[in-house]
Amino acid sequence: MSLFTVPEYESRLRKTKLLMEQRGIDVLLVTDPANMNYLTGYDGWSFYVHQMVAVFAEDAEPFWIGRKQDANGAKLTTWLDHRNILPYPEDYVQSDEHHPMDFVVDLLHQRRKAHASIGVEKDAYYFTAACSETLQQGLPDATFINATLLVNRVRIVKSPEEIGLMKNAARLVQKAMTIATQSIEVGARECDVAAKVYHAQIAGLEDIGGDYPAIVPLMPSGRKTSCSHLTWTDERYRDGDTVILELAGCYKRYHSPLARTLTLGKAPQAVQDLADVVVEGLEQAISAVKPGVTCADIDQVWRNVIEPRGYSKDSRLGYSVGMNYPPDWGEHTASIRKGDRTVLRPNMTFHMIAGMWTDDYGVEISETFCVTENGAQVLAAVPRRLFQNL
Amino acid sequence: MSLFTVPEYESRLRKTKLLMEQRGIDVLLVTDPANMNYLTGYDGWSFYVHQMVAVFAEDAEPFWIGRKQDANGAKLTTWLDHRNILPYPEDYVQSDEHHPMDFVVDLLHQRRKAHASIGVEKDAYYFTAACSETLQQGLPDATFINATLLVNRVRIVKSPEEIGLMKNAARLVQKAMTIATQSIEVGARECDVAAKVYHAQIAGLEDIGGDYPAIVPLMPSGRKTSCSHLTWTDERYRDGDTVILELAGCYKRYHSPLARTLTLGKAPQAVQDLADVVVEGLEQAISAVKPGVTCADIDQVWRNVIEPRGYSKDSRLGYSVGMNYPPDWGEHTASIRKGDRTVLRPNMTFHMIAGMWTDDYGVEISETFCVTENGAQVLAAVPRRLFQNL
Repeated sequence: MSLFTVPEYESRLRKTKLLMEQRGIDVLLVTDPANMNYLTGYDGWSFYVHQMVAVFAEDAEPFWIGRKQDANGAKLTTWLDHRNILPYPEDYVQSDEHHPMDFVVDLLHQRRKAHASIGVEKDAYYFTAACSETLQQGLPDATFINATLLVNRVRIVKSPEEIGLMKNAARLVQKAMTIATQSIEVGARECDVAAKVYHAQIAGLEDIGGDYPAIVPLMPSGRKTSCSHLTWTDERYRDGDTVILELAGCYKRYHSPLARTLTLGKAPQAVQDLADVVVEGLEQAISAVKPGVTCADIDQVWRNVIEPRGYSKDSRLGYSVGMNYPPDWGEHTASIRKGDRTVLRPNMTFHMIAGMWTDDYGVEISETFCVTENGAQVLAAVPRRLFQNL
Repeated sequence: MSLFTVPEYESRLRKTKLLMEQRGIDVLLVTDPANMNYLTGYDGWSFYVHQMVAVFAEDAEPFWIGRKQDANGAKLTTWLDHRNILPYPEDYVQSDEHHPMDFVVDLLHQRRKAHASIGVEKDAYYFTAACSETLQQGLPDATFINATLLVNRVRIVKSPEEIGLMKNAARLVQKAMTIATQSIEVGARECDVAAKVYHAQIAGLEDIGGDYPAIVPLMPSGRKTSCSHLTWTDERYRDGDTVILELAGCYKRYHSPLARTLTLGKAPQAVQDLADVVVEGLEQAISAVKPGVTCADIDQVWRNVIEPRGYSKDSRLGYSVGMNYPPDWGEHTASIRKGDRTVLRPNMTFHMIAGMWTDDYGVEISETFCVTENGAQVLAAVPRRLFQNL
């Protein structure tokens, strides 16, 4: 049973095929697990072996290609006719002799695609150099076209059903963030707080259970707040620590990330000042969101707040977000930063993360929002301020 | 502060350079996050952007290359001189204009490596086709050598310190598995059990906190037991369900995986029969482990138990395991399966997962063990049988 209706998958496929046609792509090999799910519904922790969805321009349905052991999972989670589920043998798994792409090469020869133009996601996490070389060696007369982000660009505008799932994810992150801010205290171990956060994210609520977020809870403290991607340890929080929390709720693979910062004890003035600027910049940037403006326009509104105050931020202010798998919940298409000309449209969804770091401390405060007909709807409702646990 | 002593990292580097020399590799570009950690201590959730450790044959220390925002994390977690931590600018992150490998190309030109032979991990998860092509275009006169698994092969034999971390991970999975088997009951939601498992894995024990395992808790139930990589839902367990639990404890990135199977209510005879064969096969295979035998030998011992009973298994019986990052805790070197000639040596560590699946149900029972001087030491102590929650 796929998550969405077959007509929704068919409309996603139509949009994908339109972009394929514009790029002159006969066959699109989709290896990004989120793109595979988006087109077929396939959902499983099997992306540690090579797998793909193959979209042939002339076919009504794509093919799922994966490990034999995962074929039953494809039958249970996709809308595809079972004849379109093509398992490769187990001895292709992490083997020196066979590469799963050899299996794909054989399929493309059977389908008379030796001279076709074949789209591949050249910079997708799980499409390795070996995948690409195996395909090129097996199909020397084919033309390979870089289709990185082709399906991601279809994903950037959500359907009402997808927005609904992200709103559920926002309810989950609200709960997780509340528990996190309440659990962090002097003497508590970071791992015990992380465990409570995980419990809240996964147990979820009475009516909705939680799925695993694509990124673990990020909660650096003290000096580590200047290292935004270090994970928790079993050290204990100390009086005076600043703690950054970047969490997501995840519902049926759809994410609503949220970041907040708190201090154990009264915030040092420098941290409070930074937080005040971050909140003001975030709020002005969100209030500038509406259809027709560009990501770069939004970034400029942010700069207009922080730069006169003597602050600067060289990392991007935000990015498109939605359904995803580890290692990232970002969609890798639009970024809210200088130079990004992406024009905002209704039902685009972004994580706007106003984070600034010095070598000694950092502050992150973020919101996930949906572009509406005339503005932005923030999905979660958690006080937008620096928390102080006195 | 790196996790291990500098002499331990130096000995890992020596072994790596020896393999580089044998392969005629002047510069090794290490992109597998576990290999990066193994050589430098670098630990952070930053592998969703391109990063690497570059090992130059002539240098005493490798270089860490990553996103500017992660450089502080590299300073805090590695043993490297800070001059060897080379951040690339933020505008290289998920950008159409710059690829992080352009930065690496510049470094290699500066280091006069335009004609060098350069080892790359062609089938590592995060070394994409785009990474490879960017390097090749920027270094047209260099020779690129496939060094996939080169460092993994150094990792296959653990140091006593590493074994100690895996024993701690085994204590964590013992706790998590016990809580899981106690929490699964008719009417409980899968997500609520997953939440308790996560809490146990991460909170850990009084003396050791848990790290995030490289794979989420896998706990398919009912029909889904024939789909070993589907993740939990918010459905409720029903009387008569079979539930497979595959979990790991993770301590400072080192894993001890463990699988058990339980039935809600009395086990159907077919499931009990399958479980009995699985346990006997697992125990005979473990008892055959000792230095000098090959992975294929161990697999044959397993087959000699199951095949006369009319069972067969086409997926591998196990694989080398240790320190890792999502999406997999396996090391991708030795597999316990037909044809794998890897000779067992003391302090190799394996996850032997005796799993068999029909289209309607499956049973998995596994152990993580360390090869000793004269046999195998199983790391966790959880009853090795089919559990029945009556």
